[in-house]
Amino acid sequence: MAAAKVVEPAPSVIDPTLRDELDIVIPTIRNLDFLEMWRPFFENYHLIIVQDGDPTKTIHVPEGFDYELYNRNDINRILGPKASCISFKDSACRCFGFMVSKKKYIFTIDDDCFVAKDPTGKDINALEQHIKNLLTPSTPYFFNTLYDPFRDGADFVRGYPFSLREGAPTAISHGLWLNIPDYDAPTQLVKPAERNKRYVDAVMTIPKGSLFPMCGMNLGFNKDLIGPAMYFGLMGDGQPIGRYDDMWAGWCCKVICDHLGYGVKTGLPYIWHSKASNPFVNLKKEYKGIFWQEEIIPFFQAVTLPKEATTVEQCYIELSKQVNEKLTGIDPYFTKLSEAMVTWIEAWGELNAPDRVSTDGPSKTGTRVAK
Amino acid sequence: MAAAKVVEPAPSVIDPTLRDELDIVIPTIRNLDFLEMWRPFFENYHLIIVQDGDPTKTIHVPEGFDYELYNRNDINRILGPKASCISFKDSACRCFGFMVSKKKYIFTIDDDCFVAKDPTGKDINALEQHIKNLLTPSTPYFFNTLYDPFRDGADFVRGYPFSLREGAPTAISHGLWLNIPDYDAPTQLVKPAERNKRYVDAVMTIPKGSLFPMCGMNLGFNKDLIGPAMYFGLMGDGQPIGRYDDMWAGWCCKVICDHLGYGVKTGLPYIWHSKASNPFVNLKKEYKGIFWQEEIIPFFQAVTLPKEATTVEQCYIELSKQVNEKLTGIDPYFTKLSEAMVTWIEAWGELNAPDRVSTDGPSKTGTRVAK
Repeated sequence: MAAAKVVEPAPSVIDPTLRDELDIVIPTIRNLDFLEMWRPFFENYHLIIVQDGDPTKTIHVPEGFDYELYNRNDINRILGPKASCISFKDSACRCFGFMVSKKKYIFTIDDDCFVAKDPTGKDINALEQHIKNLLTPSTPYFFNTLYDPFRDGADFVRGYPFSLREGAPTAISHGLWLNIPDYDAPTQLVKPAERNKRYVDAVMTIPKGSLFPMCGMNLGFNKDLIGPAMYFGLMGDGQPIGRYDDMWAGWCCKVICDHLGYGVKTGLPYIWHSKASNPFVNLKKEYKGIFWQEEIIPFFQAVTLPKEATTVEQCYIELSKQVNEKLTGIDPYFTKLSEAMVTWIEAWGELNAPDRVSTDGPSKTGTRVAK
Repeated sequence: MAAAKVVEPAPSVIDPTLRDELDIVIPTIRNLDFLEMWRPFFENYHLIIVQDGDPTKTIHVPEGFDYELYNRNDINRILGPKASCISFKDSACRCFGFMVSKKKYIFTIDDDCFVAKDPTGKDINALEQHIKNLLTPSTPYFFNTLYDPFRDGADFVRGYPFSLREGAPTAISHGLWLNIPDYDAPTQLVKPAERNKRYVDAVMTIPKGSLFPMCGMNLGFNKDLIGPAMYFGLMGDGQPIGRYDDMWAGWCCKVICDHLGYGVKTGLPYIWHSKASNPFVNLKKEYKGIFWQEEIIPFFQAVTLPKEATTVEQCYIELSKQVNEKLTGIDPYFTKLSEAMVTWIEAWGELNAPDRVSTDGPSKTGTRVAK
């Protein structure tokens, strides 16, 4: 049974740190001093920084990190007219970083997230836990009451079908947040002082057929399995909605993972979310989403994708058609969004073509200082 | 939003200890010395003890507990020919206790389960946690990533539809086990030394449409909502299978809860499971179940109940028909089981008729000693 615990290829050929196979994507509008705290965990990885807002502003990256940085001018230059699918003045711009990464795995984190401590007081290496989650299978077809059966000291409980114990490949690892919980504006307004102090020592698979609210703050995924669906939509500048970028990506990814037989995990690792965003500003961004989601979620709960859709790209194009057909009644925004979904897939295809020779690079790169 | 957090009736009229509304059901073949450890938590509740095996044996119940005790002779006397639906020489006999209880809530526990300690070293009042789980709603229609939103310090996260935040009435509270995990015989054989040391501080709802392996060791439920489906099947003496009693009840209950709109929670509370049962004996009891479940589970995953079935009894009778039609191909045992399901519902109806005057009692009762 131990052999069934790691998705192919065999564990002996994978570097368990994924040092050369994972990029860290960070959307930001400010100097990245928060990286100092992450130095012990991130310094051996390559960072892709997506600078939002004013492209003339200089973002300071602490020394010693290996990174490339893209601002809005870079995005426009690299994508041309297709840059219209990348949001501006919204953390949704992070998905540009997913597109330009050449690695198999992505970890994305917000710049107001710090290293959390486990109940013993030890610093949590969030990245290491995401990698563990991504390299071990998921269990989307039957609920295991002792949570992730692939963790040390756990297994499948009595009554778990043996035919399902190989699990499914894991596409997404959704991490959580201590301190400031990821609440919507109304909940922030009602409970301004609530802090998340509960460390739940569990990783679990979200069952097939269940949707969940995916937060982009602390998120890992396998680009080969689900990358083209990890589109954060049209948010922010010029759009009628914000703060639904990660939700949109989560709904789309989950129905596609369910269709293609991939797993989505949630739970560990925690990061320390330092600062509650302004609930009044959030309410302004969110308020349409709050009533739109009452129709969007039933739409996603009912979506079926055709058998012929066997790649993420095919699934996503099919989903864009259904979005246009079934959600445009809510607001014309959804026609625009469905078109942007197609543009995104086209741009993804161009930047991720197997035989592509890269000619466009970031405007700024940094090199790790030798120690 | 606080008002939405408790299922009707309003919290002010419910005694939060449920002292007069809950029975504790214990199946046993031995003296109940394990109750000593539970005394601080159980002494104000009524116990229903179902004595399995030799009815001439005297089971000692520690002084000070208020209980009634039924042995096989009592079951035969009370149910007459319908006693055939109650298993003998198997803990499945516990469901007789559910049937004779006159209370709205049931907590059932095995006699090798002791009080566990939380990570701070404090004794866990398992019953109190089950009651909390049962008196607060479930969230079967959308996954909440911060687990039970009705616990103190938690809530629904951003992106959780507001229309679903009232939740669904909770029918079942499934608790877990520290020390000896609930493994099947093959896993016990492969990992004889594995102990569950991970205290996961979470309660969560098992999403609609997902099955789970329900263990009967540490289980609470609302009899009004799901009681007639809490049948532990034909196991043990004279049957080709054992150790699938609780699994059977779990599969049936989950599809009926999904159909009727009730929730099933799992997670806290933990009990301390003291003794691993013999894996060789277990393998003998389980081995048919291990391959039968490969067909039974897809059957339950595909079950649909007709809209006209609006009570648990109607759902259960419908399920019995489908079991007979679709599972008898596995083994003639399933015809017998489907008949026993009908007998169970008939017996349940007789003992739980609203206007019934009780004429049959237990063979033994004890009264709490005044202090």
